[in-house]
This record gives sequence, structure tokens and C-alpha cells, in this order.
Amino acid sequence: MKIVIVGGVAAGMSCAARARRLDASAEIVVLERGEHVSFAGCGLPYHVGGEIGSSEQLLVQTPTSLRAALNLDVRTGHDVVGMDPQARTVRVRTAGGEETVGYDALVLAPGARAVRPPLPGIDSPRVRTLRTVADAVALRGRVDDGARRAVVLGAGFIGLEAAEQLAQARLEVTVVELSPHVLPPLEPELAAVAAAELERIGVALHNGTAATAVEPGTGEDVVVLGDGTRLPADLVVLSVGARPDTAIFEAAGLECERGAIRVDEHGRTNLPDVWAAGDAVVSTDAVTGVRRPVPLAGAANRAGRQVADAILRHDTARPIPTSLGTAIVRVGALATAMTGANRAALAHAGIAHHTLHLHASQHAGWYPGASPVHLVVHFGLDGCLLGAQAVGADGVDKRIDVLATAIRGGLTVDDLIDLDLAYAPPFGAAKDPVNLAGMAGANVLDGTLRVWHAADLDDVVASALVVDVRSRAEFASGHVPGALNIPHTELRERLGEVRDAAAGRAVRVLCGSGVRSHIAHRVLTQAGFDSASLSGGMLTLRATLGPQQAADRLVTEEVLVP
Amino acid sequence: MKIVIVGGVAAGMSCAARARRLDASAEIVVLERGEHVSFAGCGLPYHVGGEIGSSEQLLVQTPTSLRAALNLDVRTGHDVVGMDPQARTVRVRTAGGEETVGYDALVLAPGARAVRPPLPGIDSPRVRTLRTVADAVALRGRVDDGARRAVVLGAGFIGLEAAEQLAQARLEVTVVELSPHVLPPLEPELAAVAAAELERIGVALHNGTAATAVEPGTGEDVVVLGDGTRLPADLVVLSVGARPDTAIFEAAGLECERGAIRVDEHGRTNLPDVWAAGDAVVSTDAVTGVRRPVPLAGAANRAGRQVADAILRHDTARPIPTSLGTAIVRVGALATAMTGANRAALAHAGIAHHTLHLHASQHAGWYPGASPVHLVVHFGLDGCLLGAQAVGADGVDKRIDVLATAIRGGLTVDDLIDLDLAYAPPFGAAKDPVNLAGMAGANVLDGTLRVWHAADLDDVVASALVVDVRSRAEFASGHVPGALNIPHTELRERLGEVRDAAAGRAVRVLCGSGVRSHIAHRVLTQAGFDSASLSGGMLTLRATLGPQQAADRLVTEEVLVP
Repeated sequence: MKIVIVGGVAAGMSCAARARRLDASAEIVVLERGEHVSFAGCGLPYHVGGEIGSSEQLLVQTPTSLRAALNLDVRTGHDVVGMDPQARTVRVRTAGGEETVGYDALVLAPGARAVRPPLPGIDSPRVRTLRTVADAVALRGRVDDGARRAVVLGAGFIGLEAAEQLAQARLEVTVVELSPHVLPPLEPELAAVAAAELERIGVALHNGTAATAVEPGTGEDVVVLGDGTRLPADLVVLSVGARPDTAIFEAAGLECERGAIRVDEHGRTNLPDVWAAGDAVVSTDAVTGVRRPVPLAGAANRAGRQVADAILRHDTARPIPTSLGTAIVRVGALATAMTGANRAALAHAGIAHHTLHLHASQHAGWYPGASPVHLVVHFGLDGCLLGAQAVGADGVDKRIDVLATAIRGGLTVDDLIDLDLAYAPPFGAAKDPVNLAGMAGANVLDGTLRVWHAADLDDVVASALVVDVRSRAEFASGHVPGALNIPHTELRERLGEVRDAAAGRAVRVLCGSGVRSHIAHRVLTQAGFDSASLSGGMLTLRATLGPQQAADRLVTEEVLVP
Repeated sequence: MKIVIVGGVAAGMSCAARARRLDASAEIVVLERGEHVSFAGCGLPYHVGGEIGSSEQLLVQTPTSLRAALNLDVRTGHDVVGMDPQARTVRVRTAGGEETVGYDALVLAPGARAVRPPLPGIDSPRVRTLRTVADAVALRGRVDDGARRAVVLGAGFIGLEAAEQLAQARLEVTVVELSPHVLPPLEPELAAVAAAELERIGVALHNGTAATAVEPGTGEDVVVLGDGTRLPADLVVLSVGARPDTAIFEAAGLECERGAIRVDEHGRTNLPDVWAAGDAVVSTDAVTGVRRPVPLAGAANRAGRQVADAILRHDTARPIPTSLGTAIVRVGALATAMTGANRAALAHAGIAHHTLHLHASQHAGWYPGASPVHLVVHFGLDGCLLGAQAVGADGVDKRIDVLATAIRGGLTVDDLIDLDLAYAPPFGAAKDPVNLAGMAGANVLDGTLRVWHAADLDDVVASALVVDVRSRAEFASGHVPGALNIPHTELRERLGEVRDAAAGRAVRVLCGSGVRSHIAHRVLTQAGFDSASLSGGMLTLRATLGPQQAADRLVTEEVLVP
């Protein structure tokens, strides 16, 4: 049995290692076009910024170590330039010329290539993508050589990691993103929190526009944006996405879909004895059913391993699961993470759902260091969990991982009530934020809680009475125009005022984060009002409006010291 | 509707708050024997050590704030001393005398009382339990007054939190525990890691013995242990457990079981219109089915809330779940956490199972700050997850919460392969420790991996050839007597040596943590050997032996510098 694997990083190398452990005698050949295999692709930005001091640390394995430990035949500098599925061969270009390599089983793990938009000046040596160790070393070199100004094109995961690292290395950093906000898959109200953190660490943001040209200069280049802005830069990181690297294989008859390789649930392609895994492969979204490539390292590693099972143990191999797309990125002192579908994906798929916002602390509020986990949870009208996102200084990864596990386990939002999570003051709360999401979700499902959303502010102000149940000082610090302020502790005694002010209109309650307004909502509902509570309170409202609109639209007052 | 709740801390107060949100008009009376309601019971040790500076911070709510926010009638200093289920009344003793309070629904949340063993001298004022704010304030007072030496009786959660905090406050601390190791519910091989950390922060341990007397003195007391040790102490923390506080209610006909209140899945007792929740209630273990009280704050809070649902929404109330007993405690720089059943509970319940040990890093090894999560996972012969425990400096809470969620979701060990967890270098690994546990578990289930355990060392040494596949230097630093050292990278070439040395015996492989020995096991198995790999490698073997036995039994050699 001769297994040939094209691509020696995440999926390819996981496949090779697993294949060897399953079959001590197979011939296993890994063909890698680049200089390195099994390198720490996700660590590249951290070498640019210097957190990972030596680029050697990025080289997890070498062909020599892989030969020794696993008897793998790993060939770097071997670029697969063609295949012949009938003859069961691939054509390989090396420094020494071309050769043909035969296979019994072929695994395609070619990954993706960075997208390079065809802009004037894009080939300036100061413009660099961040996909290889050589890229990271080159960017690190510019930083060491005293680069002062950087422009990052694209505010996805890699772009923001690069921006954060360059800012940490004391460069002046500007990020340019075509979407209206950083981290396009993130809900805008959470992206606003990440954006504020980026600005705090000194990163300037240009959203809603893109580079139209790079003007190479002698001292520095100038990046020209669609809105006319001119950004001088000693270095430019190009991180506007990647595209599956499949052209060669398509030419040989490989079936693709949305530009990525189509596979069955065992990674098998349409060609006989050809499998595929990793960033070049299309996968099915676990929530929406949408088919798309999901370029994430974890999924690639797992799928590579499972393809080895499919080849060597076809009868018992476990299917490769649908994708939740769980992902996380550190932005300054915050973590930003997501799993499952976001609001846009749900809308696109036509999946009716509820959304809840919570701002509970990562651990008991009375234990030092408490900080909020800003959490958004989407769930179906039947309670099924559809997606979750979070931003915060601590405990974000844990909550998203718990929710990703809950989705995988088929739990409904009210099942989150029953999660028996580890609590001691430094680690959590007696009611963990995930439990609280479950309680709120159950309340929404059975009608105990009815929410309104910040995005509906205009409609609400136009048609309902807004009752703000925060304290007078909080109210004065910024409130919705026309809101009636009755602190929640006084509401029971002052229902008459609400009745008078509402004058038959619906009542829409809000507070700081949604906790007090839930209590108030219960009082109002039981007193016969058409009431609803603002999901996530003023924290979410402000984040939804953004700093400029919040300043323009919210009313602030001077407070008389009582 | 008049709801009377006995006990105003975790379960009781959660029940009261939920009842009010569900029913704006009910009369809700909370009777609390102590001075405070809704205080941060789990925070008490952290006030003793000074991390929580002011005891005010422990008072999350007061009767006044609860009246204002939720219109609750909260009465502290109200000790329920009797009940009449026929008349639907409880008898209450207050500073002003006794009174009778009637109810339509009664919720018993009396909690548990600290166990005070009847030892000579136990009533010395220097001996104190740690259950109330007054306890914490008194202990903090002794620390402030210059106490130098502390003895902690009992190495459970509260005992260890107290010990850690007292050590942090620079007292000389000794912990006394009757069980053979600290944190009795923890597997011994993980408890050894926690014990080493306690010793590192200056806490002395006396396991396998108990106090037999306290000899009060003028300058200090002396705690006398069963093994004759005499421990002088300025203060003694008594934390040997708690017992449900049910005597008064039993006298009135309340059915108990194992000393705790028997309830159905909605918290209903055998008495009409009487419910119960919290530390005084028996619950069913989710894994073993064993019935016992589980005194954990999270479960109490959730159950209290659900009892309110049961009372006010009996038709649609969600059942209170069985217990996983998920718990965590910080010990110095480490966290120690567990969920589900441990080995002893599984043995007692007669549940056949596999056990795996892993020592994977909490995040990518090449990213700065990587540290091991020492993880133990138990699963059934059919793959069902039964329990997990972990110790480590970082990421322990996350992995145990993910595993607790997986158990609740009914996932099997091999399902853990598919968990789509958040990965970026600062937060995790492309193959998270939980994914790795799934891969190893799947390998065990289908026979790809066969493990042996450190506890079987004597049998293995007596009957098999131990092959140690670590490097020569690692081997020399301490190895099993009689082991053959062949580094895993040389094994394929040196199978003849193994065959000669084994001379027909089985081969038992080991390495540092179990990763290399798994590769070696696959080579040996496919070469026809009866092979197995040591679960958790030398790390687990050393922890299982303990420092003394490891020093006595492992062979160290000088290594010639190559």
C-alpha cells in the first residue's frame, strides 16, 4: 500500500501520522511544495510581534524527525503540478526537474493560497501575506529594521492577530476592512467591543472601505483607500482571505464546489482512491447546512486523521462531522470567540430564531478581577441552540467551548440550565453565564421573558413608552430620548406613573445589562402591560449604536447630588 | 399564596427570587437563622486570606435590598425550631421569643451544619469552622492579630482553600486528613500533583491520620494527632465535612435518606406542600445512581430556582437533574477539578470501565506559557463517558466544563474527537486535550490502543518485559528496574533486541507521557508482540508511586555525555 499525501501541514501531516500508526508497513510519502512541513501556521503572527522569539519554534516537526519517529517519507520543495487519476500518478516539480509519483491512495491537502487582489502596486516588496514561515520571518525582519508604520489589509482573524502584534511591537498600525466592522463573522454589537479594544491598544480602524492602490515610494509606500485616505506604510500585511488551491486537480477531473474540493463524509472525492481534507475542502455547516470551505486548523487536523481511517479502515471509519466553525482570536486584552451560526447566516438560511445578550461576569462578582463575558446566544423557536459568540477579558474560550459542546450534544437552550459546571470563586459563578443563558432562554421559550432588541430602537421610540429602570445617576449618564426613569426598586409603587405615561402604548423596559429590566418586565407584565425587556440593556444598545451614534442620540443630564 | 422558605442562602434565596419573578403577588417569606442572607459562602476562605479585603463584599444582598428589588420579606435571626405539616405552620425562635408562621407552600433549604467531632478540647476558642461570615471575620481577625501557625483539619475543598489562603497570609500551615491523600474524591495520581503544589507553597501535610485532641494552652493550642504528632497552633480550622440540618423536620414526619431530605425530581418531599433544595437534600448521582447529598453551590442555586417553578408552574416545571458533582478548587498556582464518577465510585457501583491519562498542554506547545493539563478520563466499555478529573496551572476549568457538558449531552468518548473547540495559540491547540482524549478513547475501544496502568507495575515487572522508549538521558533520570531502553525513533530497527529480551513474555511499553509509547505500541503490535502502553507514562507512574516510592523503586543512572 502506497499512500501519497499532497501537502504537509495540518490535514496532510495528521493524515500521514495516523496512517503510519494504523499501518506499520505502508509506504507513506508526503509531498510539500513549501520549505517546511508541520509548521505552526497559527503561530506566524506571534513571531512577527516577537512573542515567539525564534522562528525555529514554529517548526514543530522536520522531515528528519518524522522519518525517525514515524518512518514517513517527507519531501519538501515538491510541488505537485499535475495528476493522472487513471494511471494513479501525480506529477511533481522539484528543484531537480519533474518526476512522476505513483499512488494506491492519494490524499489532497493542498490548503489555500492567500488572495492577492489585482491592485496597482500590490507587488511592492513592502506588501506581504502571512501564510508561511518565510512571510513571518520577513515581516519580523522589517520590524527589527525599525519599521514604524504598518497597514493591515483585512480585519479577519489573521489580520487582527497581525495588527495586535505589530501594535505590541510599537508600530503605528492601521487596519482596513471592507465590511462595516472588524471580524465580519462577529455580530456587530460584539465587534464594537473588539474595535474599542483595538483602538485602546493604538490600532486605527478604517471600516467599510478597501485599498485601491499601493504607491511604492523610496522611504515608504502609500496605501490608497477607496475613500481617498492615504496611509503611509513601512510594511503592509495583506490578509484579505485565502482561496482553496485546487486548479491543478480540477484540470484532472476533480469535482469542486464553491471553489473547493467536494468530498463525502469520509473525505472521499469523485476520483477513485483520491481523498481530500483541510482548507481546500468544502464542508457542511452544522446549523445552516450551507456548503463552504472552513479554513480552520482544528477541523483540518481532525479531518486529516479521519481520512487515514477512511483509507485504512474503510468499514469502521467515523464520519467527518459537519462544521460549527468554532473560532477565537485574541485582540489586545480581550478574547473574541464564536461557534455555530451568526445572525446573518441564520437570516440567509431563513431560520427563525431568538437572540439573547448577556453580560455576566466570568466569575463571582465579589471575587477580585471579575470582568464581563459579553455573550450572544441564538436559538431556534423550538429551543435548539444555533450559535453563540462572546467577547471579554477572561473566560470567553471556556463559555464558547461549552456551548460548542452543547450544540454538538444536541442540547437545547433550556438544557443549559442543567449544566453542572465547575464553580469556585476564581473560576466561575454558582450560576455560570452559560446557565444564565439557559435560564433566560427558557424564559423566552415559555413566554416568561419577552425581549426587544437594540436594532429596533427607532420603532420602539416611535411607538412605545421606554421605561428605564436604572438609578437616576445611570439614567443621567445617557438615556434614550423620551424614556421614563423609574428605578426598578420603585417600580412596584409607581405603576400609576407608567400607566399615565404609556397612555395605552406598549412599554419597553431597559436597564444596564438586562437583569433589572427582566425583574421590571415581570412586574409590568403581571400588572397587565404589553411589556418587553431590552436584550443586553444599555451595554448592548451602546455597542449596537457605536460611539458616534450613541453620543448623538443618547441624552445626558447633569445630576443634582442628592 | 404564601410561600415560606427556610434558609436564605443559595437554594433558599434562588427560590425566593424566582418565585417573585414568576408571581408578583405571592407573599414570600424567607426565614434565616443566621445573621446574613445571600452571602458569598464560597468566598469565606478568601476573606480569611485577605484576597477579599472587606467582609462587606461577601454580603451580596441584604433584607433591605431584597425587599426593594423583589418585594421579599426576609427575616434574619429567625430560627425554625419546629413544624406542623397538618396545620401548615412552622415554629420560629427569634430574639423576641417564639412565633408561628403559616404557609401555603413551604421550602426547606436549611443547608448543612459543620461536623464537629467529639474530641477533647474541640471547643477551644482557637478552633473554628468556616461556614459563616462571622467565622471568616473571626479567622481573619486572628490572622491580623499575628497568628503564626495554623492547623487545618480536613483536606476537602474548604480545608484546602483555607490552607492556601493562610499560607498566602504567611502563616505556617499544616493540613491533617484522615484519607490517604488530600482531596479524597480526587484520583490519587492527581492528588499527588496537588499535594506537591501545597508543599511548594509551604503547607505541610499529614495524611492518613486525624486529630485525637486539642490541648488548649495559653500562648497557643496543641493539636494532637492519632500518630502521636503534636502540632502547635494559634488557630485551627475545622473542615471535616458538613451534615444536613434536618432533625427538626424529621421529627415532624419528613422522610429522610442517608441523613438528607428525600425529594422527587421536582424537589417535593413526602409532606404535602413541602419542597426542599440545597445541601440538605439527597440527590441521585448521574453516573452511578448512588443517592447522597451533594453540597455544591451551583446545584443548590439551580435546584432552588426549579423548586419555585415546581410550586408555581407545577405542570411545566423542568425536573431537577441528576448530579455530576462537578467541582473545582484552586491550590496555589494549580486548579484541581472533577466531574462525574471517580475510580472508587465506579468500582463501588461495579461499573466496568477504561481509564486514560493525558498530559497535553493547555495551548499550543510552541506558544509561550504552555503547561500541562493532567487529565484522567473514565469511560464505559461501550464508550459512554463516566467521569473526568484534571489538575494543572491553566485551562483545567475549561476542559472539565467541556467534559461535564459532553456527559450531560450523552456524548461517548469517541464523540470527543468531533468537538469543534475554539483554537488560537493563546487559548488551545489544534487538537485540544479533550479531542486527544477522544482519539485515545476511540483507539482503546476499537483495540488500536491497549493500555496498562501504573497501579499494575508490580505484576508487569514480574511477568513482562518493560520497554522504555524515552531517550537515553530520560531513561537514566529514573526508570523501572529491568526495563529495556530503546528510544522510539530506533525501535523499528531494533525489534530483534525486543524479541530476544522478551523471550516470549508480553511487552509493556512506556515513555514520558504516553505519546511515544503509543507509537511504539503500534509498531510492536503489528510486529506480533503482546504489547500495551503505559497510560500517562512516567508522569503518571511517578505520581502514582508518590515521591518516596519513586525514589526507592526507580533506578537512576549516570549518563555519559555523548
